[in-house]
Amino acid sequence: MNFPIIRKAVGRLLIVMIILLAFPLIVALIYREPTLNIISFLVPMVLVGILGYLFLQGKESNRRLTSKDGLFICAILWLLYSLIGALPFVISKEIPSFIDAFFETMSGFTTSGASVLSDVEALSHSMLFWRSFTHLIGGMGVLVFALAILPSSGGDLVHVMKAEVPGPTFGKIVSRLKHTARILYIIYLVMTLVLIVILALGPMNLFDSILHSFGAAGTGGFGMKNTSMAFYNDPYSEVVLGVAMILFGVNFNLYYFILLGKVKEFFKSEELRVYFGIIIGAIILITLNISTSYQSISKAIRDVFFTVSSVITTTGYSTADFGSWPLFSQMINLLLMFCGGMAGSTAGGLKISRIIVMFKTAFREIRAIVNPHRVQAIHFENEPIPDRISRSVGSYFILYSLLFFLIMVIVSLDSPDLMTAFSSTSATINNIGPGLSMAGPTSNFGFFNDFTKVVLTFSMFFGRLELIPVAILFMPSTYKKS
Amino acid sequence: MNFPIIRKAVGRLLIVMIILLAFPLIVALIYREPTLNIISFLVPMVLVGILGYLFLQGKESNRRLTSKDGLFICAILWLLYSLIGALPFVISKEIPSFIDAFFETMSGFTTSGASVLSDVEALSHSMLFWRSFTHLIGGMGVLVFALAILPSSGGDLVHVMKAEVPGPTFGKIVSRLKHTARILYIIYLVMTLVLIVILALGPMNLFDSILHSFGAAGTGGFGMKNTSMAFYNDPYSEVVLGVAMILFGVNFNLYYFILLGKVKEFFKSEELRVYFGIIIGAIILITLNISTSYQSISKAIRDVFFTVSSVITTTGYSTADFGSWPLFSQMINLLLMFCGGMAGSTAGGLKISRIIVMFKTAFREIRAIVNPHRVQAIHFENEPIPDRISRSVGSYFILYSLLFFLIMVIVSLDSPDLMTAFSSTSATINNIGPGLSMAGPTSNFGFFNDFTKVVLTFSMFFGRLELIPVAILFMPSTYKKS
Repeated sequence: MNFPIIRKAVGRLLIVMIILLAFPLIVALIYREPTLNIISFLVPMVLVGILGYLFLQGKESNRRLTSKDGLFICAILWLLYSLIGALPFVISKEIPSFIDAFFETMSGFTTSGASVLSDVEALSHSMLFWRSFTHLIGGMGVLVFALAILPSSGGDLVHVMKAEVPGPTFGKIVSRLKHTARILYIIYLVMTLVLIVILALGPMNLFDSILHSFGAAGTGGFGMKNTSMAFYNDPYSEVVLGVAMILFGVNFNLYYFILLGKVKEFFKSEELRVYFGIIIGAIILITLNISTSYQSISKAIRDVFFTVSSVITTTGYSTADFGSWPLFSQMINLLLMFCGGMAGSTAGGLKISRIIVMFKTAFREIRAIVNPHRVQAIHFENEPIPDRISRSVGSYFILYSLLFFLIMVIVSLDSPDLMTAFSSTSATINNIGPGLSMAGPTSNFGFFNDFTKVVLTFSMFFGRLELIPVAILFMPSTYKKS
Repeated sequence: MNFPIIRKAVGRLLIVMIILLAFPLIVALIYREPTLNIISFLVPMVLVGILGYLFLQGKESNRRLTSKDGLFICAILWLLYSLIGALPFVISKEIPSFIDAFFETMSGFTTSGASVLSDVEALSHSMLFWRSFTHLIGGMGVLVFALAILPSSGGDLVHVMKAEVPGPTFGKIVSRLKHTARILYIIYLVMTLVLIVILALGPMNLFDSILHSFGAAGTGGFGMKNTSMAFYNDPYSEVVLGVAMILFGVNFNLYYFILLGKVKEFFKSEELRVYFGIIIGAIILITLNISTSYQSISKAIRDVFFTVSSVITTTGYSTADFGSWPLFSQMINLLLMFCGGMAGSTAGGLKISRIIVMFKTAFREIRAIVNPHRVQAIHFENEPIPDRISRSVGSYFILYSLLFFLIMVIVSLDSPDLMTAFSSTSATINNIGPGLSMAGPTSNFGFFNDFTKVVLTFSMFFGRLELIPVAILFMPSTYKKS
């Protein structure tokens, strides 16, 4: 590990947080909130300034960053952002417990949307804004955000970004270079802006529109009403958000193709077709399953469309309590949660492309056993899947399952029932937000003890950065002198 | 596919079933059971005789069996054995529904031990014997049994047997050749005989001792009392069976080493050490977790030892209702169920060796990401793990998970709650037997509708033959003319 370079990189990236914290500060000023709220944002701004300055001291080093250094920077930066980002909630006493605030902030940055708050509506405008703003920042990636704001530097750090981009990395990914990363980031912000405008044109007011757009853009799902989207009972906003979530679950590289005029490339994407296929299939199956319990078929389709869109993108907004749907529909939702959105989107879960590669690899194995003498090549997006990717996707699934069981066993020490333990683990590691049973959409994570909250906080952390970077934080070899 | 050879092979193996059916027939005669019971066994004996004779007609073929042919023979034979083995229950009207009887017989041959019967004690001696005898046959494998009985022939068929041996195949496996297979089979029978004698020396009568020994040897778990082992409340039999189940969960190749005098080889086995490590760890964790709710610590340890032994070997005998233990203990049991016993044993689950290879492969992946320039070799049992095995173990886990979810979704259409759907899927695909909730140890699978019962029957079938052979039965390409 090359700690001098790491320190400098983290220092630079920390200072960027001053700019991010300025946004909720402005909101606090606009709504003329009490001085304590102003201070709540000023203190962390000063803190990151001092920390950043201290980190930047010391000699320059000419050594290049290794990939391990890069993964470490990514993980430590997310951790620091979440720890420091929790301070406004604590200082303002709106979330007095630091552990709770840390959980809530990590949930924001990782775009999980799991909450420990039983009364969200009690938060002030600036805190609600900051809470949802973390979704916007975390959706595209903390590093991507920071690097886009940092004017000239970057250099080596650009390569670090890929640790943040969800899903397995394939050959054609365009986000490797700094200028394309910036374009993706502009697409993301423009889409969010358009969403705000469209939402605000409907019954929802501007502030609510902004916050819900942040939640949909990052596929995070923090609401601002105790009953989430059911509060509004407004078909217009539901349809707009439903469509928006699906669009933010699409690989952003594909939007780049559209910008370049390659519309055909967009629709030729295998992952996109599977993604839409799953969405349409799930909507049909669930609608058939629940139709008898709904008075109006149009209301049923509306609820199912919104739920499927929210669940597959792991956003977590709800208009209906799908925990009370028939078991079969709950199962379909459960499968969608594990699927997640497309690679390179803001969604969580395993990612569609990873699942496609997993299945193709596994089915090739069957064919190889059946016909050992015929070597079969498998393809994804019209290119052969290299063995390296097949293997790493399989390994990812194994590690993911191992971590899932480990967290679930720990959480079970503090859970009333299996459903709570299982769903709170799934809701955090897949960055969904609400689970089922005691941690369901009509409830929250506040009843867990502090230890379990920390475990679930790290579950979200592991899930968002896809295990490896966070694992490096825990490996003793990381801190050994070489 | 080479159907002429397949037909002849299946024909030969079917005729062997006459000998197997003779055993319960003798029991029926000993206990002077009604003529209907005698007929119940005579009819399938005549049937397999005729079927076998018809299959054996036709020209000889000089072509050799391909591995696909072999897997197909294995799957079709298990299916035929289960279909025909169900007849005695139906003809005697002791299990009047054919679907129920088919479920029960498949559960027997696959050594699952899941039952649709609410009152086992109502069965006659011969039916109870046949039900448990299927465990003994299925434990080592239907083919192994049939081949060991077939005097001279075999030839090509010996290679087919490996489809039946649970767990991934490594280089050193000794069961490839016919004579070693016969030795393994003799070890198995001798161990079962010894167990019968030791059990019968205690409070349990001879008939009960025989049946429980069959259940422990095959790690099947069919009991003969409605409350399973809790009926006896007898420390002696519990300890004997507890130890026996663990011993039958050991890879039989290791016993062969002992026979050859290589005792050191036995204890050097990495898989064996992990197996015992998991057992001891689980006993300690669960005892600590439940100790406060037990009056006597010795009774607690006794119950925990028996349960862990029964669960990790996927036998399914119970002395305590572990569904009422604290959630953490239930979780540990759940993990044990998925682990299963050692490869090459009679136990179900994923198998310890497969899990070891999975973890090593996955952790190598982390190391490869962290240090991309250093190639790391991984070892199992002191030999390098070939890439082929790494890949196939990963693929197996993916296929297993896929099938698991698929079955669970179908079962959820007919389940009162998630726990029932999840645990009945797990109990069948892992060949455990009892699940939790509505399908728990104090209940049975009888409440499911016929369609779900058939699905769960195939779940046991898939689990026992480790997916691929059964998958071949469902592949359209199997029946295409080449």
